[in-house]
Amino acid sequence: MGTLNPTLPLALTMGDPAGIGPEIIFKAFAAQPDLMRHCCVIGNLGVMCKQLAGLSSHLLAGMSCVEVLQVSQVKDMKPGQIAVLNVTPNADIATGLVSAAAGRMAADAVTWAAKAALRGEVLAVVTAPLHKKALSLAGVHHPGHTEMLQALAAEHLGLKVADLPVRMMLSSQDLRVVLVSIHVSLRQAIDAVTTANVLQTLQITHQSWPALFGRHPKLWVAGLNPHAGEEGLFGIEEIEEISPAVIAARAQGIQVEGPFAPDTVFMRARQATGASAPDVVIAMYHDQGLIPVKYSGLETGVNQTLGLPFIRTSPDHGTAFDIAGQGKADPASLLSAIDAALRADF
Amino acid sequence: MGTLNPTLPLALTMGDPAGIGPEIIFKAFAAQPDLMRHCCVIGNLGVMCKQLAGLSSHLLAGMSCVEVLQVSQVKDMKPGQIAVLNVTPNADIATGLVSAAAGRMAADAVTWAAKAALRGEVLAVVTAPLHKKALSLAGVHHPGHTEMLQALAAEHLGLKVADLPVRMMLSSQDLRVVLVSIHVSLRQAIDAVTTANVLQTLQITHQSWPALFGRHPKLWVAGLNPHAGEEGLFGIEEIEEISPAVIAARAQGIQVEGPFAPDTVFMRARQATGASAPDVVIAMYHDQGLIPVKYSGLETGVNQTLGLPFIRTSPDHGTAFDIAGQGKADPASLLSAIDAALRADF
Repeated sequence: MGTLNPTLPLALTMGDPAGIGPEIIFKAFAAQPDLMRHCCVIGNLGVMCKQLAGLSSHLLAGMSCVEVLQVSQVKDMKPGQIAVLNVTPNADIATGLVSAAAGRMAADAVTWAAKAALRGEVLAVVTAPLHKKALSLAGVHHPGHTEMLQALAAEHLGLKVADLPVRMMLSSQDLRVVLVSIHVSLRQAIDAVTTANVLQTLQITHQSWPALFGRHPKLWVAGLNPHAGEEGLFGIEEIEEISPAVIAARAQGIQVEGPFAPDTVFMRARQATGASAPDVVIAMYHDQGLIPVKYSGLETGVNQTLGLPFIRTSPDHGTAFDIAGQGKADPASLLSAIDAALRADF
Repeated sequence: MGTLNPTLPLALTMGDPAGIGPEIIFKAFAAQPDLMRHCCVIGNLGVMCKQLAGLSSHLLAGMSCVEVLQVSQVKDMKPGQIAVLNVTPNADIATGLVSAAAGRMAADAVTWAAKAALRGEVLAVVTAPLHKKALSLAGVHHPGHTEMLQALAAEHLGLKVADLPVRMMLSSQDLRVVLVSIHVSLRQAIDAVTTANVLQTLQITHQSWPALFGRHPKLWVAGLNPHAGEEGLFGIEEIEEISPAVIAARAQGIQVEGPFAPDTVFMRARQATGASAPDVVIAMYHDQGLIPVKYSGLETGVNQTLGLPFIRTSPDHGTAFDIAGQGKADPASLLSAIDAALRADF
């Protein structure tokens, strides 16, 4: 599955530079140089150099940020060198604080990386965390990465955003989930559990799988209500919305089972082995899927956007402003995200 | 904490005799005789004897069911003897099938055990699983144990059922949760997230704790919406309903924090240690709490009803009609439920 000798480099965005993005990037280069030699950091050179100098960890001794003018120059890096493509104007950034300047740098890096991926210049985009409020202060009217990337891809393809539906997939070491909806209230999430949305989630997941894993997936679908509604006793969405989507998906050749009782489907998926094991569980709303994915620990969680015309992964955590600049941040989730992107068979 | 030398016996209801109830009871007696010598099985002697004879496991060799006329006779049992108090008329029961006769036996056992607990004749009630449909066929108009026990206790105390609110607590080896609502649709569960209901959940949990654990608890409260609503961006229940309940509870001396983002609060509660660790997380709806409790595996989960005037626990699984009579059922969760009931400091 996949290759670890990609012909194209991977674009790794710096994230909000007031958060832990730069630090986990440095630590990732230090921890797994063989993996990271495929990565070009997209962001601001001055900020990266300053942050590296400010971290006194012995793990980072001898490392340096080196400016490149194109991503292909990652192949020229020597051990300890981190390739940085400077795509943003300089600005002073205060570590640990929300600011328009930091939000702007983060957004510029994402925009550049997405466009490079859409032009076919990079294998994939891996994004370090950004901060929603900083993004908003910078005048970016998308709540997060997913919506930004979707808008950029739709524009590139000449589509309306609504015609390029995407879904979020979260993976831990023992579970993968794809979410029908993400950042809406639970009431709105219930309204979004329609046959059309569930079917679209199944289709996007099914269609994305071969590029990621070299084959079609086996899907399980969670119900919405306790005990999956217990035959209509505690809610009718399973009968009226979810089951029709499962039946329609099967008619299209998608391997899918469910809806199953939400309280046990994730545990059963984790424990299942062999031919009966699903590749992924389709969760009806944000927390239904994220509670079990995060329950075992966040260290190596990966967030992946399905439905884009390029591979995009990210770590499963935020900017962690509270520990930024202190040398405490853990690069494990970022490394998992980079590994997942490099293994993809696009 | 608690005692394993109780002065009163524990009432252990047989459960639906077409399911795995009798089998897990036999296996529990075989596996942990020191724990089980405090237990009197409440149910039907003929069915228990027949089921024991039908199971060919070498683990059960030499065991026998012995009729007692009062629960205090458990102290007279010899090794291998299982005390059974016969409280139901005889009937033929087909293993693995839903029937009114089996539902009636299960209900009679629960009624007898609850009344004995209310009279102060038993230390606690532990219930083997019953089947909702069998109960209904038997003319019992409660959806499950919790509602039956609540109604019996309210009647005994001369209260309306609404004036004896109860809550379900679920425990695994690494997490405890108490649920604001249980068997209602997710839409109705959202409607039930009111300041009054959340506050009542906090009060019931706080008041139940000393009897169970000898001290007051430290509570964490989950939000309802993704990211706990992100300051009202994805839902207002945290601001309008949950936070006011937390503030009111604190004013009453209850140690409580939150509401916290649902996708990480259970993971954080599991990982927390020392003085910062909560005893229990208050979940806003059934699956929010049960997904993480069950995720690590069902083997030793315990279900406990808080708010009753007696201790009541049960295993965290159902009747498992699909494997009934086959010798495959695991008594681990029942043993955990009995252990939890015996350790309670009531």
